[in-house]
Amino acid sequence: MSVLDKVLDRIDQDLDRSLDRLFSLLRIRSISTDPAYRDECRQAAEHLAKDLGTLGFDVSIRPTAGHPVVVGKGGNGPGPRALFYGHYDVQPVDPLDLWETSPFEPRIKNLGAGRKAIVARGACDDKGQLMTFVEACRAFKAVTGSLPLPITFMVEGEEECGSNHLFGFVREHAAELRLDLALVCDTGMWNPQTPAVTTSLRGLVYEEVRLRCADRDLHSGLFGGAAQNPIRVLAKVLAAIHDQNGRITIPGFYDGVRELPADICADLAALDLTAEEFLGQVGLKIPAGEKDRMLIEQISTRPTCDVNGIVGGYTGDGAKTVIPASASAKVSFRLVGDQDPEKISQAFRAFVRERLPADCAVEFSNFTSAAAIQLAYDNPALARARAALAAEWGKKAVTIGSGGSIPIVGEFRDVLGMDSLLVGFALDDDRVHSPNEKYDLTSFHKGTRSWARILAELAGG
Amino acid sequence: MSVLDKVLDRIDQDLDRSLDRLFSLLRIRSISTDPAYRDECRQAAEHLAKDLGTLGFDVSIRPTAGHPVVVGKGGNGPGPRALFYGHYDVQPVDPLDLWETSPFEPRIKNLGAGRKAIVARGACDDKGQLMTFVEACRAFKAVTGSLPLPITFMVEGEEECGSNHLFGFVREHAAELRLDLALVCDTGMWNPQTPAVTTSLRGLVYEEVRLRCADRDLHSGLFGGAAQNPIRVLAKVLAAIHDQNGRITIPGFYDGVRELPADICADLAALDLTAEEFLGQVGLKIPAGEKDRMLIEQISTRPTCDVNGIVGGYTGDGAKTVIPASASAKVSFRLVGDQDPEKISQAFRAFVRERLPADCAVEFSNFTSAAAIQLAYDNPALARARAALAAEWGKKAVTIGSGGSIPIVGEFRDVLGMDSLLVGFALDDDRVHSPNEKYDLTSFHKGTRSWARILAELAGG
Repeated sequence: MSVLDKVLDRIDQDLDRSLDRLFSLLRIRSISTDPAYRDECRQAAEHLAKDLGTLGFDVSIRPTAGHPVVVGKGGNGPGPRALFYGHYDVQPVDPLDLWETSPFEPRIKNLGAGRKAIVARGACDDKGQLMTFVEACRAFKAVTGSLPLPITFMVEGEEECGSNHLFGFVREHAAELRLDLALVCDTGMWNPQTPAVTTSLRGLVYEEVRLRCADRDLHSGLFGGAAQNPIRVLAKVLAAIHDQNGRITIPGFYDGVRELPADICADLAALDLTAEEFLGQVGLKIPAGEKDRMLIEQISTRPTCDVNGIVGGYTGDGAKTVIPASASAKVSFRLVGDQDPEKISQAFRAFVRERLPADCAVEFSNFTSAAAIQLAYDNPALARARAALAAEWGKKAVTIGSGGSIPIVGEFRDVLGMDSLLVGFALDDDRVHSPNEKYDLTSFHKGTRSWARILAELAGG
Repeated sequence: MSVLDKVLDRIDQDLDRSLDRLFSLLRIRSISTDPAYRDECRQAAEHLAKDLGTLGFDVSIRPTAGHPVVVGKGGNGPGPRALFYGHYDVQPVDPLDLWETSPFEPRIKNLGAGRKAIVARGACDDKGQLMTFVEACRAFKAVTGSLPLPITFMVEGEEECGSNHLFGFVREHAAELRLDLALVCDTGMWNPQTPAVTTSLRGLVYEEVRLRCADRDLHSGLFGGAAQNPIRVLAKVLAAIHDQNGRITIPGFYDGVRELPADICADLAALDLTAEEFLGQVGLKIPAGEKDRMLIEQISTRPTCDVNGIVGGYTGDGAKTVIPASASAKVSFRLVGDQDPEKISQAFRAFVRERLPADCAVEFSNFTSAAAIQLAYDNPALARARAALAAEWGKKAVTIGSGGSIPIVGEFRDVLGMDSLLVGFALDDDRVHSPNEKYDLTSFHKGTRSWARILAELAGG
């Protein structure tokens, strides 16, 4: 029996106690955004620190201006040295009356068809996912007396309220946190049977554009026909952003967007994500992105532009015959590959300016400017993680792109110069942030086993 | 000395007393929209009824569910029988602290350069204008003992709050109000030297369009690229309404729009309204209408489309990465000539529907549907009025189109089958509805003389 097999066996034997430990953490009401739970956040940090201490980690609870960060260092050997990131805080629980049972009294619920799930606030996000990694470390420690590679835990308590103090913390402690690879367990599987590594996170440029034409609101009877209407100008600008094939027309927009490797593209095609399946759940039918791209590309590996808000003129009930002085829109871009947020922002602004009449003034604001994250498809850690996941789940592990962002991963890259391996076991129906949050028992159990296999692979197989 | 000359002379001699009578009416605080002034509205109606009674009119104060309507019938002769429309109510006076003197204590203010003005609420709109007609009748009565033609006064007290009860009143009393021609004194001159007849009033179709794509708001990271965005759809629709020459592209939109007669067009061109003059006052420079039309056509004799309001998605401070479920816009059309409001509404709705993805639903509301008013350029009353005005002011009287609407004029046409002759002496700087409303003494004096000449012309010269 190999060391890994012994570790996996240990995980199986220890499952009930692993659940007990997870339940202890879930009972702590560590709602970070509500000051009333400040002490409970501290308690969660201390609970975790104590647990890691029993595994031989050199643990410290680092204060910040907000909730503390737990840092634990353990393991020896040649590496790669891993920085594991997770968070011990959870979302608020309201509306409380929609919970079937108390959100901080975790339980196992039988979902039918052989599925069981852990139900509690944080069962998935992120206490359940965090503990898959902790339990994998524990099994290694129990079987081998040590960890398979050097591991530093960095577990924060403010992820659900914006990680406000973590960015400064990472910069301040860059020297000790700059290791070889970050491991993040805050993502999901493709579906309950198919494991996944999230290899890309789209970036985001978020702009507001405000147009002003006349110096006051005008009567549309007296001025209509001659006075420029900023809503009309804005509509022309926004309508010009996408061509009839759903492609974005801003010059230079696609600079830095790379084609997927053929094998990755084939893997995505094999997932066969249909419009009925993905869009049908929200009442839509027709993919609105680039017509020559698969739906799964449109939502993950291709850049986008969306108008997130627009307002101008009279928006109350009934009619007002006004030509407004101003109109504004919030316009955001999801970026991929090496698209440069600053260049996208400038190109967008130039695109708008070129379309304005000479008597129409414009102001811009930028709210977000973050590049995409892309784990190189030839990164050795990726191949090892995929092999480990395939071994555990009996199915090829796909690489997927996440449409949204995880800002700290950008910090790892930009401040620490580290790639991140994003592996997680969340499922689409986990009701993260909602009442009756759950985490499949299989996600927890096989997730723990998956991390054991990944650690073994990373350590050299 | 002709009868008309005697009448005009009488007007000149009687000017001070005419002003005294106007001032008496101006002192009555007949603010129709504020229930606190209900008695004063009644008092204004009674004051006017009494005055018309002294001129031999058969007067009645007709109750409505709101403020009463004064009806006075006088004069004999072959006609044309004229229905004179005016209103005795005025706008509220706030902000009171911006008035140089009390709004209901009328006075003569010296404007310099020989100009004097009557300053008070209602000095122009509409007590001053109304009294030009009353005083013309008085002068005829004084000189000839009768009126030059049969005249029915209909003076309402709710014009400033929507004429809510006048429409029903007109329908109810259509038999007695259906005469040969309506005379309305609620419009303006082209400029202080140039008299004008308002021969057209643009109609109005006012629609709201509401688009719905997904059945809920979506996260732009997760769904962006694949989910249809109703703001994007709406922008495409709105942007398609005008072509690059400012022409409206909705099929059939220009049906019923007629070219101006060459002489009328030449008259308009001679007015030489410049963008600097008209648009410069509100901070604009470039006419936004049909490029092959004069500015004065764009604002008066050509149809338009304006987006009066738009809203969708997140419109608060900062950023929210949402793809909204819905977006809406208020879209209105100013109509001219024989454009059919119902057809315009249907054509617009078809235009929108043709541009919607199959999974985007639309709802429409219509708030206004009123055809344009157009006095035929060959109407004999128009030629007579223009001749009379030219004689009084020593300058050709122009025909102008008003960009806005006067709803009761539509009722006169549709319910009573009568054309309206719109003549008035307001000037652009009269501050109608604003503090320090004024009416040039010249407007009042020569306005009275103008009506005397018009009545004489209408009666057969």
